[in-house]
Amino acid sequence: MSTRVFVGAPADPAHVGLDAAESHYLRRVRRVGDGARIEAIDDHGGLWLAEVVGGDARVTTVKLLEQRTVPAPAREIVVLLGMPEPAAVLDVLPALCEIGVAEVVLVRCARSQGAAPGGERIARVLRAAQRQCGRPRAPAISGPVDLREATTRRTDLPGLFAWEELRATSSDVPAAAAGARVCVGPEGGFTPEEAALLRAAGFRALGLGPYTLRTETAALVAVARVMFA
Amino acid sequence: MSTRVFVGAPADPAHVGLDAAESHYLRRVRRVGDGARIEAIDDHGGLWLAEVVGGDARVTTVKLLEQRTVPAPAREIVVLLGMPEPAAVLDVLPALCEIGVAEVVLVRCARSQGAAPGGERIARVLRAAQRQCGRPRAPAISGPVDLREATTRRTDLPGLFAWEELRATSSDVPAAAAGARVCVGPEGGFTPEEAALLRAAGFRALGLGPYTLRTETAALVAVARVMFA
Repeated sequence: MSTRVFVGAPADPAHVGLDAAESHYLRRVRRVGDGARIEAIDDHGGLWLAEVVGGDARVTTVKLLEQRTVPAPAREIVVLLGMPEPAAVLDVLPALCEIGVAEVVLVRCARSQGAAPGGERIARVLRAAQRQCGRPRAPAISGPVDLREATTRRTDLPGLFAWEELRATSSDVPAAAAGARVCVGPEGGFTPEEAALLRAAGFRALGLGPYTLRTETAALVAVARVMFA
Repeated sequence: MSTRVFVGAPADPAHVGLDAAESHYLRRVRRVGDGARIEAIDDHGGLWLAEVVGGDARVTTVKLLEQRTVPAPAREIVVLLGMPEPAAVLDVLPALCEIGVAEVVLVRCARSQGAAPGGERIARVLRAAQRQCGRPRAPAISGPVDLREATTRRTDLPGLFAWEELRATSSDVPAAAAGARVCVGPEGGFTPEEAALLRAAGFRALGLGPYTLRTETAALVAVARVMFA
């Protein structure tokens, strides 16, 4: 497993000083020594092969050797996430980051419980996910907005919504499209009014099998269906 | 959201006594009163519409009204799960239950960390998942076994394995098949030797996108790809 650090926007690729948090992670958490090859993520979404030059757990210097090319996900997927409780939101965001979702819009639905997690907590879980999965740019997170507002975003992409009353497998996924909006409800699902609103906004219902999925599972399964259709 | 209780193998559908754990769940956790309609899961994989007749949080009586038909998942999926740490195993099993996986074989891989969770803890998370998702029969869980042994199971189904070195989207999913075996590695992935063993056993590599997925995410994404191909 690669070790990855965040390097900000370094002026000189040959002498990059890691901040205290990154130095601590590298030296204490991952126990990486001088001369080791690691990966570095810069503030512009670049991923680099890097070498640890010197320093300690408070300040470490690395050298960026060469920029790596990271293939893009198969499709541009925007998730409209009907918010479950905050802990579940923080659970699902790393998985959506890993699978390659471009953007997540947090949506207040009729059955949403609790407020959105704070921006700092969201940033923290996304950063950990980037370290783990090697994704150089985190998905853009916005909201919370209400469902009607959410349906006006990214109307250039076809829309689908996970609908638990559609128990059969729908194969009605826009496979040829370059991307899609995927809308998933909170715990308890969409109300009939919300489903009607989504249909009126041009979203098509997507079945996810015979059982009732938690929001975290539904989001991942729906995105996987659409990403790899 | 439906409330669901487990009723064992009742002798008389008109008078089913819930045990203390189920009575507590119904009355204290879900706060369901007499006369309410709920769902009941029996020991034979049956799902019933039921009515709460009387009793309290220690003992409650319900009446089974009619058996419900639950549609089957689209395909019979057997997951060979390269074990991550025990907490991650307990995290992924409920999701695999929800999505409709038929069977999970726990596999000790070269990079597996820790022992398998105990049978009682596995049973508990599966039971909670069944309550939540309305699945009347839990997936069969077996193992842990080693990888070679795992590849000898269910050879009637085509095999696929998640291979993180295959970054591009593989569309090479056996869409026409009635089911499949899906093999997913532990944290850190399969070793080259393990990948060779899987190929020799007839498993085909399946790409899950450009980033490194945690085992929990990989299992769900791989199953979603194959279940709905």
